[in-house]
Amino acid sequence: MPTEQNNRLTEQASGVYIIAATPFGDDGEVDLYSVDSLTDFYLEQGVTGFTILGMMGEAPKLSEAETTQVMARIMKRVAGRVPVVVGVSHPSNRHVERLSKEAMDLGAAGVMLAPVPNLKTDEQVYGYYAGALDTLGPGIPVCLQDFPQATGVHMSVPVVHRLVDDFEQVVMLKHEDFPGMRKLSQIRQASDAGEHRRVSILVGNGGLFLPQEMLRGADGAMTGFAYPEMLVRVCALFDQGRPEAAEDLFNVYLPLLRHEFQYGIGLALRKETLRRRGAIRSAFVRRPGPRLDRTDLDELTRLTARQEAALAKFEAR
Amino acid sequence: MPTEQNNRLTEQASGVYIIAATPFGDDGEVDLYSVDSLTDFYLEQGVTGFTILGMMGEAPKLSEAETTQVMARIMKRVAGRVPVVVGVSHPSNRHVERLSKEAMDLGAAGVMLAPVPNLKTDEQVYGYYAGALDTLGPGIPVCLQDFPQATGVHMSVPVVHRLVDDFEQVVMLKHEDFPGMRKLSQIRQASDAGEHRRVSILVGNGGLFLPQEMLRGADGAMTGFAYPEMLVRVCALFDQGRPEAAEDLFNVYLPLLRHEFQYGIGLALRKETLRRRGAIRSAFVRRPGPRLDRTDLDELTRLTARQEAALAKFEAR
Amino acid sequence: MPTEQNNRLTEQASGVYIIAATPFGDDGEVDLYSVDSLTDFYLEQGVTGFTILGMMGEAPKLSEAETTQVMARIMKRVAGRVPVVVGVSHPSNRHVERLSKEAMDLGAAGVMLAPVPNLKTDEQVYGYYAGALDTLGPGIPVCLQDFPQATGVHMSVPVVHRLVDDFEQVVMLKHEDFPGMRKLSQIRQASDAGEHRRVSILVGNGGLFLPQEMLRGADGAMTGFAYPEMLVRVCALFDQGRPEAAEDLFNVYLPLLRHEFQYGIGLALRKETLRRRGAIRSAFVRRPGPRLDRTDLDELTRLTARQEAALAKFEAR
Amino acid sequence: MPTEQNNRLTEQASGVYIIAATPFGDDGEVDLYSVDSLTDFYLEQGVTGFTILGMMGEAPKLSEAETTQVMARIMKRVAGRVPVVVGVSHPSNRHVERLSKEAMDLGAAGVMLAPVPNLKTDEQVYGYYAGALDTLGPGIPVCLQDFPQATGVHMSVPVVHRLVDDFEQVVMLKHEDFPGMRKLSQIRQASDAGEHRRVSILVGNGGLFLPQEMLRGADGAMTGFAYPEMLVRVCALFDQGRPEAAEDLFNVYLPLLRHEFQYGIGLALRKETLRRRGAIRSAFVRRPGPRLDRTDLDELTRLTARQEAALAKFEAR
Repeated sequence: MPTEQNNRLTEQASGVYIIAATPFGDDGEVDLYSVDSLTDFYLEQGVTGFTILGMMGEAPKLSEAETTQVMARIMKRVAGRVPVVVGVSHPSNRHVERLSKEAMDLGAAGVMLAPVPNLKTDEQVYGYYAGALDTLGPGIPVCLQDFPQATGVHMSVPVVHRLVDDFEQVVMLKHEDFPGMRKLSQIRQASDAGEHRRVSILVGNGGLFLPQEMLRGADGAMTGFAYPEMLVRVCALFDQGRPEAAEDLFNVYLPLLRHEFQYGIGLALRKETLRRRGAIRSAFVRRPGPRLDRTDLDELTRLTARQEAALAKFEAR
Repeated sequence: MPTEQNNRLTEQASGVYIIAATPFGDDGEVDLYSVDSLTDFYLEQGVTGFTILGMMGEAPKLSEAETTQVMARIMKRVAGRVPVVVGVSHPSNRHVERLSKEAMDLGAAGVMLAPVPNLKTDEQVYGYYAGALDTLGPGIPVCLQDFPQATGVHMSVPVVHRLVDDFEQVVMLKHEDFPGMRKLSQIRQASDAGEHRRVSILVGNGGLFLPQEMLRGADGAMTGFAYPEMLVRVCALFDQGRPEAAEDLFNVYLPLLRHEFQYGIGLALRKETLRRRGAIRSAFVRRPGPRLDRTDLDELTRLTARQEAALAKFEAR
Repeated sequence: MPTEQNNRLTEQASGVYIIAATPFGDDGEVDLYSVDSLTDFYLEQGVTGFTILGMMGEAPKLSEAETTQVMARIMKRVAGRVPVVVGVSHPSNRHVERLSKEAMDLGAAGVMLAPVPNLKTDEQVYGYYAGALDTLGPGIPVCLQDFPQATGVHMSVPVVHRLVDDFEQVVMLKHEDFPGMRKLSQIRQASDAGEHRRVSILVGNGGLFLPQEMLRGADGAMTGFAYPEMLVRVCALFDQGRPEAAEDLFNVYLPLLRHEFQYGIGLALRKETLRRRGAIRSAFVRRPGPRLDRTDLDELTRLTARQEAALAKFEAR
Repeated sequence: MPTEQNNRLTEQASGVYIIAATPFGDDGEVDLYSVDSLTDFYLEQGVTGFTILGMMGEAPKLSEAETTQVMARIMKRVAGRVPVVVGVSHPSNRHVERLSKEAMDLGAAGVMLAPVPNLKTDEQVYGYYAGALDTLGPGIPVCLQDFPQATGVHMSVPVVHRLVDDFEQVVMLKHEDFPGMRKLSQIRQASDAGEHRRVSILVGNGGLFLPQEMLRGADGAMTGFAYPEMLVRVCALFDQGRPEAAEDLFNVYLPLLRHEFQYGIGLALRKETLRRRGAIRSAFVRRPGPRLDRTDLDELTRLTARQEAALAKFEAR
């Protein structure tokens, strides 16, 4: 069994870090039974790592006690089998620090940090991260979360390079800008050319452009698509040097993946799919939050049936 | 040959209204030769109508003389075979009026109008449209363009209903909110229930959710995907009551469609694809505007080759 | 001495509800000594009420324990002499409910609630508040916070009216839209005409338009200008039917008030002024947050000296 | 009489460049009679220069012919007595170029250029300006307009420096970020230290912080406050080394200036004030645009009367 040390997040990280949903009961309480079953589900699908308490994990809606509870529960269930990255984004650097230390003490591999809103220029974005990273210190591996659709903050290639150059603990970029594939290429080309340290790049946006991003040099995916087994297989095929086979498989799932990609309602669709797959007991999203109506549910049913049929046909080639 | 009157935009409009690109030479000048060839290309693919001088047609980058020139040229080439809708969005109502009248005089079927930026509440959005529609008068058929990703303005279902109730010339909604499928369902359900006049709903966003939107009651697509023949066939299959066949075909094109869906660079990809298909002579986008680099071009080549292979396989079933 | 019941927030509320800063030491810890001295300072300046744990109180940067600590400390120090409104805005309705109940149990007069971000249409804004108000129930008096510059959410006059009509516990509007004076007039005219229940309207934006807003029917101010005695005197003069005298006094402070009005850095200027006035021991703002440089400090010194001279001259008329 | 050459915009520019309103009749047509009278009014108030066809000049609402007409008319009336800067911001660089050349041919001193929307990072902002400046060439003096409240684009200090270093034709910055005084200080300190070429900095935002900005190193104002004589006198007093006297005078006008500072409705208030002062015949703002109601008009009357009284008292000291 790997020790905690083995699980520290490094620049070599690759594969699928699943963005874990946080399961609630229909009464809105954290459902620990489902936390366990969902953890097992992800592990069974072969994910390389976990990312917990991110935006899609409804982290801002958890109380501090719930945050600790969920974090500890998942960490215990994972039991060091794969690395766990913990989302620690918060308006206060003190809280970022407190939560990061708690996460590392519980066995996290590293933390993921998105910028606070209202940062505008390159200097402001760099300044925010520099302040937070100084507070955290070099001992905690950090994944930069570049997700302007949610944060409103745009992280330029020079800012990423400067942070990578100045802070050794920055080991990963969660690339989720949209559209943002050129940014990915530029960062990877610069590290390939030896101009900057190479960090791991995992891609988000539900994986909507995963094959293109892998070809541009991504190391894997960090997203929460409700069929993680596809992400795992696609990344494995890329590892085996079989991009065409990878993309063929990816395209079988693309219609449903695109459906789940819808901002807002996407989380409700994802949880409902996980529920239908038996991974969690309730698809409840904390209020205020998206709710599916009859049309949404029937639409999902139809799309899922189509996907199952397509997959069966694909496997039977 | 249909008369102009036959081509007036009505609530019964359906099918594919192609968002026409505006072709330039590599020197940035309007390329009238390509305007003609692109018009022919669209007609050959079987589009039901044209929408010209929209945002993806780079309308804000045309001079007034160029606007007139392009409009007249397309109208002449189309020669009444299909209806032409003209984008007339502008900061000044006077200009909206002037351009609309010019368009109708040249034989347009109607006009498409997006709101000015910085409208926030339902009252403000309604107020803007009411002012513009009063200026235009009841004689000019209007398509409301609901595209918050570009305008920053959010149009609620009650605002759409109120505009439909108060202004008979509102005959179409271009539905391009994202995500926005519930809005589409609500508007269609209200018209099906006889609560509000039924207007045509054509969907945008490159057609990313076209099958789902057709099932929710859309009448077709108004978008500019560089393979309009797919949109045409999909809509026809829906008309024939064959949604599964329609979606099977759609999914063959989905990878490339998703690729073109990327905001900003999507226009450059679309023009490059049209160029490669022989529809226009240059993929030039006016400055400032997106430009493709070597990686982008190779990526497009690979995706196009994959699509051709997938299509061949699909047709050979 | 007024009982707690007497202090429940009602539609009759008027005067100055000071937006209380949250004092920290230079080490970033909550400074309880300064919490007390600041509370005393505000009471000595004659404020009518307190609003604590708002955005300018850096509430999102407090831990849950700190939130309770600060709330309890101020409530104890105020000891029922004036009503205390507690900011309870949060991404989760469960947290809004928990914090509101805690506040009311500790003796709060009511709570203030801003909408979560990303609400766009009238329906969405109404829907958010309706959900939260249903959760809170009719027993907790609520102040709606309309502050689009910070939340990005725009609350229309019809939405305010509908909330006032549907939820009796809505007793106050914090009017902070900018520009937004017409909104204030419309709401007040509608209540004067008996079309909707009259609620208290207190104005924010540092008081930048206080005299104009009082003339349009505001009941007072809810803001945190570091010279609350001016706000108190101005409101009193309006109460006495002396608008010209009120505005003459207001204008003496306007240069500094305008200076403090600057978003972001305004909080640092306000805390520094409170420190210089002896109300708190440190002007520390939690990170990330604005910091004053030498130029800022000197500029504040100069403006303060000018204000003192102007005030002396004004009083000596 | 100065030749055109003498009027070329340079880094030495200072004083008050008035943002000129564009007068319309009540029917919405350009009112050339009022264009002349307004030009005379500004000249009589002693402005140092003009800035025409900016956002507050409703430039985006003019037709191309009207643009030429207004530009030629003002230029002719000014007759080289003071420099005229022409706003040339536009979605297309071709149009920027065409309009700039037309302006220079008509005798403009230089042009003012704001960035197109949707530029996010430092690279994007620099890239936009570099492209446009390359198109214009070194022969046309340019004022960079930094007005993020209107454009949504944030220009960092390093971007300004880089543009100043790379393009000799950049001779002026219109500083209108809010809050943005630190930016002004940083740019001026860098030029004082000889690190970058010194360009003229004129401030906007209606002049709300003019005295503070002059003390931080601004060279004057570029704004459209309806009492330009105050701006002229304040700048002159600063030139004479009398900052306290300057600010005393400024503060007399501050209540009305703050009132006009309101975004949106501010333009209507400004035009109404100019109308009342006899500078133009109608306060009409083209649709869609702000309109004053009875309350707004009465409020303006009261504030104006108070200002006149305060000014009389001030002058009589």
